[in-house]
Parts: sequence; structure tokens; C-alpha cells
Amino acid sequence: MDILNKKVGVLGGGQLGRMLFESAHRLNIDLTIVDPQTDSPAKQLSNQKHIDKDFKDREAIFELSKRVNVITAEIEHVDTKALTEIVERQMIQNEISKSNLRDGKEHYANHEDHTMVLPSPKTIQVIQDKYIQHKVLKEKGVKVAEFEYCQDYSNAVEIGSRFSYPLLLKARRNAYDGRGNVFVNSENELRDAWDKLSSNIIPSPDNSVEDSGIYAEKLVKFTKELAVIVVKGIDDQIICYPVVETVQSNNICNLVLAPAPVNGITCEKAEELACLAVKAITSVPNTISIELNNGEKKDIDVVSKCAGVFGVELFLLENGEIIVNEIAPRPHNSGHYTIEACDTSQYENHLRSILGLPLGSTKLKVNYAAMINILGLPTSVCGSTDGMGLIKSIVNDTLLVPGSTVHMYGKKEAKVARKMGHVTVVANSPVEMNRRIQAIMHIVSGENHLANNSEKISKILCGSDETVYRPYKPIPLVGIIMGSDSDLPVMKSAADQLKSFGVPFELTIVSAHRTPERMVEYAKTAKKRGLKVIIAGAGGAAHLPGMVAALTSLPVIGVPVKGRCLDGVDSLYSIVQMPRGIPVATVAINNADNAGLLAVRILGGTFDLYSDRMLGYLDKIRLEVEGKIEKLDSVGYENY
Amino acid sequence: MDILNKKVGVLGGGQLGRMLFESAHRLNIDLTIVDPQTDSPAKQLSNQKHIDKDFKDREAIFELSKRVNVITAEIEHVDTKALTEIVERQMIQNEISKSNLRDGKEHYANHEDHTMVLPSPKTIQVIQDKYIQHKVLKEKGVKVAEFEYCQDYSNAVEIGSRFSYPLLLKARRNAYDGRGNVFVNSENELRDAWDKLSSNIIPSPDNSVEDSGIYAEKLVKFTKELAVIVVKGIDDQIICYPVVETVQSNNICNLVLAPAPVNGITCEKAEELACLAVKAITSVPNTISIELNNGEKKDIDVVSKCAGVFGVELFLLENGEIIVNEIAPRPHNSGHYTIEACDTSQYENHLRSILGLPLGSTKLKVNYAAMINILGLPTSVCGSTDGMGLIKSIVNDTLLVPGSTVHMYGKKEAKVARKMGHVTVVANSPVEMNRRIQAIMHIVSGENHLANNSEKISKILCGSDETVYRPYKPIPLVGIIMGSDSDLPVMKSAADQLKSFGVPFELTIVSAHRTPERMVEYAKTAKKRGLKVIIAGAGGAAHLPGMVAALTSLPVIGVPVKGRCLDGVDSLYSIVQMPRGIPVATVAINNADNAGLLAVRILGGTFDLYSDRMLGYLDKIRLEVEGKIEKLDSVGYENY
Repeated sequence: MDILNKKVGVLGGGQLGRMLFESAHRLNIDLTIVDPQTDSPAKQLSNQKHIDKDFKDREAIFELSKRVNVITAEIEHVDTKALTEIVERQMIQNEISKSNLRDGKEHYANHEDHTMVLPSPKTIQVIQDKYIQHKVLKEKGVKVAEFEYCQDYSNAVEIGSRFSYPLLLKARRNAYDGRGNVFVNSENELRDAWDKLSSNIIPSPDNSVEDSGIYAEKLVKFTKELAVIVVKGIDDQIICYPVVETVQSNNICNLVLAPAPVNGITCEKAEELACLAVKAITSVPNTISIELNNGEKKDIDVVSKCAGVFGVELFLLENGEIIVNEIAPRPHNSGHYTIEACDTSQYENHLRSILGLPLGSTKLKVNYAAMINILGLPTSVCGSTDGMGLIKSIVNDTLLVPGSTVHMYGKKEAKVARKMGHVTVVANSPVEMNRRIQAIMHIVSGENHLANNSEKISKILCGSDETVYRPYKPIPLVGIIMGSDSDLPVMKSAADQLKSFGVPFELTIVSAHRTPERMVEYAKTAKKRGLKVIIAGAGGAAHLPGMVAALTSLPVIGVPVKGRCLDGVDSLYSIVQMPRGIPVATVAINNADNAGLLAVRILGGTFDLYSDRMLGYLDKIRLEVEGKIEKLDSVGYENY
Repeated sequence: MDILNKKVGVLGGGQLGRMLFESAHRLNIDLTIVDPQTDSPAKQLSNQKHIDKDFKDREAIFELSKRVNVITAEIEHVDTKALTEIVERQMIQNEISKSNLRDGKEHYANHEDHTMVLPSPKTIQVIQDKYIQHKVLKEKGVKVAEFEYCQDYSNAVEIGSRFSYPLLLKARRNAYDGRGNVFVNSENELRDAWDKLSSNIIPSPDNSVEDSGIYAEKLVKFTKELAVIVVKGIDDQIICYPVVETVQSNNICNLVLAPAPVNGITCEKAEELACLAVKAITSVPNTISIELNNGEKKDIDVVSKCAGVFGVELFLLENGEIIVNEIAPRPHNSGHYTIEACDTSQYENHLRSILGLPLGSTKLKVNYAAMINILGLPTSVCGSTDGMGLIKSIVNDTLLVPGSTVHMYGKKEAKVARKMGHVTVVANSPVEMNRRIQAIMHIVSGENHLANNSEKISKILCGSDETVYRPYKPIPLVGIIMGSDSDLPVMKSAADQLKSFGVPFELTIVSAHRTPERMVEYAKTAKKRGLKVIIAGAGGAAHLPGMVAALTSLPVIGVPVKGRCLDGVDSLYSIVQMPRGIPVATVAINNADNAGLLAVRILGGTFDLYSDRMLGYLDKIRLEVEGKIEKLDSVGYENY
């Protein structure tokens, strides 16, 4: 059967379904939504007939299975029992028809013969129960915070004394956006926390087990929250998007930064861990035993195929370690930015993966991107305006920010903290990225509407560099290194220049002769960590710039530092006379200013802003000389 | 009235309407489509009620005007008479109610009081008649090919003898995708051409005028076809997207390259001309005289407001001049690429402009983008497959190309040459861009399907650099200059290195002392023309690198060329010892190889491919030395 003729059914018709529909339309893929709301965000995007029933409705799920070839979900709180039955029934049917074949030839069950459920019901089931999810991850060697199931309150007290406070009490199921998590500061608070959580526990779907529905988790001290969107192909291929930082407020993710402003080696570790986690969660065995018509017994693996997009939330701990917080078996809020910023969006890749199409490139196609949620605001912020009026005013203001794309979800009412839409904003340079984030954060907070001050937005957008790097600190683009602190008086002018151009940089001591291994490490990791240029200063034998250049593919700028003899010519020759194959961009003796300026010119090729600022700088120094000419003319050379 | 509450009506429901709908959904803007096909490409994207009538149907247009606040069109062949009536009627109504006001206060007609038609009916009318369109452009000083209206055949003969052959005979109205244009090689062919064209002429809407419907156009020799998408705001703001090259085949645009591989100064001229053309075409006066109830006569300007997106097609002539070919008053095929490649898509900007919202940034957010149409193919190519089957196979194969996004239009039948969809492909480097274009052109031609050879695609994608720059030649990224041809033997190694890394470059002679003005011109235009790095070689007093650096914001790499005396130390000092403010990245004496390699390292910051290739190069030179070590070990130093 032609892949692009396959029909897809989606459980849930919210904003994720809506964005999935955008991708489906572009590929002419037929999508059927199951959602009780006839005008749900996803359904607004098509003139087809959908199923207007609850996506947990057993009958609706079976109806859907008759209409489509693949069932997927845009929410994890689905009826996995019904989904499992669909898969099992059809696999049994396949086996029986196989065993009934008269010609004796084996008829391999084709995955296209039955309605597939992707990700597999088993994987969704494991993820639904966060306790089981963490257990599976831990068993497969994926680092998670320490956790333990609480049979009852007294068990929780005992675990509390072992874990020490503060700790987290968590509901195993139906928890999202912070709901179902209680922060417990001390044993005194445990009783209340337990009762609060218990009263909202929905009994386990498997009623035979006595289950408190609660587990305890040790509090981890993290410095940042990260997230990775992982794509699992139907053929075991696993790829992932760049790691992002997610900044939460009141348990709702409200700012996503791509790429995460974290050094590239940490990013690599985070991406590896996320892929490992998805591999673990999608390979939980699920075998059923059936008896065929001929009496033969047979084990069938019902989850050998699992595919889809997964959102993996991570914690970056103080010690640099990364652990998994939790996984969502669907496109994720932290991956909205991929629509504008990556080669292929998470939504298209979800469709590609569940349909067995080639997976799309996950590369960032822009330098910087951020995503900010537009939430319903409380009446204290709305003022006299109604909720929707305020949201519209926010959308209007957001259009003033260059590089921004607004996605409204078509929801009719703006309840407090409800996700009404989001903005993705892209930027070419870290300075612009930061200003644009500041402007949008200001707008979505509703403050701008209250102040009724549109000048404020342009003020932020043209803001001085002093306000730069307030919400986020980008990673350094230039590394300034020198052999000794005695070179600092010369080398600091490079730093001053970079600062004045708004270029993020790092400065440290790396000596070719006294810390050779540190030098190798520094040079070899420089590119991965995110550096684009290295400025190296050295005097005398001056090996540092050339040795660093030999160990990296980055451009290295060498500053010959003048020593006690030979007027710096020794340093100059050592740095500039590199052998064929390894260039060092050498500047004048002791002229670290020029090294900084050369770095800005180099960065100008990638980041337009620095190139523009360099033009401004050339103008400035021309005007300085013109000022001197004027003075010379007016006072005369004798009095100058 | 809140802008985001305004309703928009669209005449036509094809692919342009479909893509307009994508943008409308994201902003929660209500769109009503007028199209006879109930399941037209645009209508498939919404669960709202549309008007299932022909978009030229007078009644349908009046019905629409009652339902929406702004009417726009996704096709220019609309009933401008009906549209004009809507605008006129309502403006007259406004004037009358104003003059009837009892309190004597003037009540300014608010543009929100009536249904606006944007772009204005007058502008659409002018564009519909290509002869009038060209006349208006010419009158406003916008360069177009020489043209003249043909009253009848004998007039055409006379014009032909003046214009000389070959020339073009063109239908004034209802021409698109090459239909309505006839190429006439000589007077012998004129009769047939005239008859062919005449038989298809639709009479002028204004029947009072005797009109042949035909005009003649002098054939211009162009080297490239360019296009610019211009956005005209309701407040006279005019902005435009970067100029693109459009490559046509059989009169249908089938490849769009963004940015146009043309030097930046030409691009600037093209963009200026396009904006001027739109300004001309949107400011044709259209005043009506009415008599108010109180007997007062009044002139009302009915087209003072015109807004929307315009596609301007241009010719780049052999002499470097640029002229306008024609204008479309709507989003344009040459602007599809903006969805993936620019800060704001042409579709969103069309909505923003007609609704009076702030216009979005038109900047390219990726390094390179291309758009390729997916057309219905003739049965000779389809082979045994049906048309739609082949299209699906093409879509499937296209997903193998990284950076590609497919847009299918939801058309049910694949007629020959019908626009079924398009692919936008983005790339980081010119090498990747070129390979991806080659792969997609191969796929959409149907050849790959016929050959049933998926290996061919990966072969193209990893192709050797020899096949690079076949469909398009990117503009140079590096400029190599030297003071004299005597420097060439040294400087050519820089060129060789760039070639081996696949970096597009230019090489020429620029002398600081013998061609000082050429040097100033070269340096000052370098960035605009598209260069990212300049390599300058010079000997002796060696002023070239430093002087060039003083005249550009680009990084300049200086190569000290060894002269007859002083061993090149004179050149080295002249180049490296630049004053504070103007750096030159100096490499070793005579080491132009290293200059080339440094340029590659610098470009690696913007184009990942060059950075990857630099890592490969470092590996290669390491292995070369290891080979020598092995040889030394095996043959001994005496025999080496």
C-alpha cells in the first residue's frame, strides 16, 4: 500500500493536533481527529469529517481503528487498554489467517495489514505511570532522580526520613504542567501533602492491584532545565533535535531557547541521554500468548514496532551531571520552535516516523530561536479588558517584533494560564535574540497592554547593550587565551573591544609550555563548546597561537606580545611564520585591539549585526581624525 | 474595530489561497473563500462555510462583501467592475450619511466603516490589462521593454518593421504562464501569429471601445530572469523581499533561487526598481464625482488606499540593465520560498498589509533556499503509473533530501503541467544547496521514478565537487587580489586551496599604487557584492592589504610576497604592523596556501561544510606525515 495513501487517526484535537494538521496538509495526508469538541483547535483546520467523541471513549477508538491505518495521540492520557486490544485482536487475526492458509506457504503478517498504534500502547502505558516510567529508565541505565513507591502514608514517612527533606511527593498518573506534584519541606508538611494528593488520585486502570498512586522523589538541585525532542523511526533509527533550555514559571514552560545556551559538550551529553531514554522506553517487551485454530500455541511480540516523536525533559545538575525528568510520547511544547527554526518540524517528523517515511533533518537552520507561550492572564492583569481582548492586543504587539511568528490555537476563551498560542522568534545574533526575547516576554506578560505604551517595545528592541543578556546569557563566541597573566595588560584590549561590540567571549590562561595538556584540551573542544574564533597572545618563542591552530579547525588570531628583548620581533616571527597547512592570522606586535577587531570582522560574516557595527566603528574613527584636523586647523600646529 | 477581529474574503481558492489560509489560521484570522469547487485546495484547510460560486460571479462578490471587512484576491482575473462598485457604493453611502449629520460635526469616514478591497480594484484593473500596465509603468519612469498597441493587423505589420524581428505579440488580457504570448521570428510568421492570438482574445470588459486586444513588444536579450516580492502597507510603507532568480521552462517557473546568484549591487538595483514599479502601479488616480443630498458636488478618491503583496518579474539584460517584465497583484510563485526561508512569509505579510497590521521582517533567515514546482507529468514520463501515483512517488523521494519541505496542494488529479505542489529546500552552504537542487530537479522530472533507483539520489547528495555548480553558479565568497600579475605564481596557491574546498571565489589584479581608484571601488563594494573574506597579496611597500582593510568591514588576509631584496621582511612588516583600528590577518611570507586555508577556517563559522572539510584536511596532512614516518622506518634514513 502506498505510504502517502495511508490514513492517520489522532486521539485528541488540541493545539498539538492542530500543528500536526499543518504538516499533514502539506503532505496531503488524511487525518481524522477524535475529540468531543466539534470546533476543537485541530478540527478547525479541515473540512473533513472527524469523530466528535471523547478520545478516551472506547467505542470512538474502535470506530477510528476502522477508518484509519495508523492511530497516534497528541496527549498521553489515552485509553491504552482499548488501544492494546486493537493491536492484539488484529495480530491474533493475522496469525489465525496465516495458520489457516491451505497452500502451506507462510504468509508473513504485513504491518500494513492492520491498524497500527504508534507509539505502541505499551510505551504510552509505561509513560502514563510516572513511577513505572522511572523504574524502566533506571533499569535500562538511564539516570533519573532517586525515587521510591509509597505503599501508604507510614511508608512515605519512612521513605522521607531516608530521602531527607525537602522532597517531592508525586502522583503516578494523570499529572501534567505541575499538577500532581507536591513539594514537601519537612515531615510536618507530609501529612497534608499526602492527603491532598491522595484525594485526587484516580484509581489504577488495573483494579486488581491495591495502589496508593503515589511515589516519592528526592529533590535534585538543578541549574537549568533542558529538553530534547527525539524521533524514533519505525525501523529503530533514532535521531534528535538540538537540546534546548526550557525556563518554567509556575510549572508551565514559558520560554524555550534554541540552541540551549550551554556549552556544546553538555549538549552532546544531553542529546545522547535523551536518545538512550527513548530507546529504553520504546523497547519494553510485550508478548502475548495465543492458541491458534490448529491447537498450536504461539507467542507474539505486539510491540516490536514503536515510532513517533518524544519530548524528553532533563535536569542539568550543579555538578554538570544530566538526568531525565520525564518523557512525553508525542510532540512537545519545547519543540514548537522547530516549525520555524529547523529543517523539518517535530510535527512533520512525527508523521514521517509513524508512516515509515524517511525521517527529516533535525538541524537548526537559523542561528538563534526562542519560543514563548501566550497564556490566558488573570483579571488583575487584564484590567477592564476581557481575556480574549487582551490576548488579541498581545498578538498585535508581538507582530512589531522582527523575526516573530505567532501561532494562535483558535481557542474561544482565555482562561487563566491556558495555553492560547505561542510565539517563535528567530534572530541572527545573540544581541538581537536577547532583545527580541525581552520584548516578547514584556508583551505576553500583559504589561505593555496595561501601560498602553508601544514606544516601550521599540525601546527594548533598540536597547543599549547594557540591558543585553538579561533573560539569557549566550555562550561565548570568542575565546581569548594567553600564555601567562603577564600578557593580560596587553591582551585585555581585545576583551574591551569585544565587549564594546556586544560579542560574548571568554578569557583565560592557557600556556603551551607550562600547561600543554590543557592547551590540547582547550583547542580540541573549542569548536564543540561553541567558539567561532580564538585569539591567542604569546611572547618570545610564542608557540601558543600556532599550536592551538594545529589542534582546531577554527580561525586563530595570534597577537605577538613584546618581550624584554628583540622588541617583539621574536614573537612576531614565531607566530606568523607558520608552515604550509596551518595558518595563524597574525596582527601587529602588542596590538590586541586589532585582534579583537579582526574577530568582530570574522564574526560579521555570520552575524550581520557585528558587520553593521564594524561599519559604524570605521565611521567613528574617521570622525575622530576629522575632529583632530579641525582642532589642528583652528588652534594651529604650534598650539596643538 | 479590533484589527484581529476583521474578517477577510478571498476571491479564488487555489494553492495561493491555501497557503494564505495557513497564515490566517496562525493569527486566528477568519477567511472566507469564493471558489466554485467545494473541495478546492484552500477550502480543504477549514471547517468554516465558504461561498461555492465562481470568483467572477457578480452575486458571489456582493454576497462576500456583506460577510467580510476586507476582500482580496489570490488571482488577478477577477471582476474588477463589481469590486469597484462595492467600493464606490459604500464610499458614496459614507459621504451621504456624513452630509446628513444633524449636529454639524464632521464625521470622518472611517476605513473600517465599509468593506475594503485590497489591492484596490483600480490597481488590479491596471495590472489585468498588460498594455495599460506597461503604459503606466513607462509613464512613471519604470523601465520596461519597448511596446506598442496594435490597432489591427496592418498596424502590427508597420510596428513589426519598426521594431524589427524577432518580436513578441501579446494578448493584453487573460494571459498567464506564457499563454497569450506569441514569439514572431519574421514578418512571414506575423499573419499566423496574429490570427492565432486574435481568435482567443476575450473582448474588453468596456465594450464601447473597439479593441484588438493585442500589443507588440520588442524582444529583449536577458541573461537572467529575476523576481522581487514587494509588500505595500496600507500606510504607503513599501518593503521588499530579497531578489530571487527564477528559472523557467516551457513558460512555467520551475526553479527559484534565493538569494539570486547575482552580485549584490545588481540585487539592490532590482529591489529598488521593483518597489518603484509597485509604487507606480498602486498610485493610479481614481476619483469619482458624486452629488450629495444637499446638492453639493464632491470628488472622492476611491483608491487612496492600496495594500497587499505584489510579485514583480524582472529581466536582467546583457548590459547589466534591469527592466520590469510584469507584475502580479498577489502572492507569487516566486515567493513560496519565503514560508521556510524568511522571517515572515509572503502570505502572512499579505494578510498583515491588507489588515493594516505591522509588516513583518522580510529578511532571509537561512543562507540559501530554492523552490522547485512539482508539476503533473505527461504519460510518456509516467510510464505505467497513473499521474497521481507518480506524484506520490515524487513526494516520497523528495523526503530523502535534507532541508526539503514539501507543499502539496490537495489537487485530486495530476493533469500535465498542472502545479500539484512545490518543494522548498534550504541549505547552509553553496555546495549543499547545489546538490540538493540537483537531487530534487532529478526527482520532480520523474526520471528517478522511472529508473526506480533510490541510490541515484544519495549519489547526487554526496556527489563529488566536480558536479557542483551545474544548475547554478553561486556568487564568490572570497576575493583574491594582488598588486601585479608577478604575484600570481605565489597567489595562485590560495586559489587552488579554495577550489579544493569547494569555495566559490574570484581572482583579479588590484594595485594600491597603480589603480588606487579601482582599489577603493573594489574594497567599498566587496561586501555588497557578496564577498565574505578578501585575500590580498603584495610585496615590498605592500600597501594593498592594509588599504583594502581600511575601506571595508570584511576580514582581510594579507600575504607578504617576497621581493628581490630583504627576503620579504619588508612586505611582512608593511602588512602586519597595521595601526590600532584596522587589522590585517597576516600569514607567513609567500604562504598563500595558508591564506586560502585561513579563509576556509573563517567561512567555516558560517558554512558548516567548510569547517567539516577543514577537519578532514587536518586529518589528511597528519596521515601524510604518518606515511613518511612509516617510509622512514622501513627504508632507514640513509636510503630516504
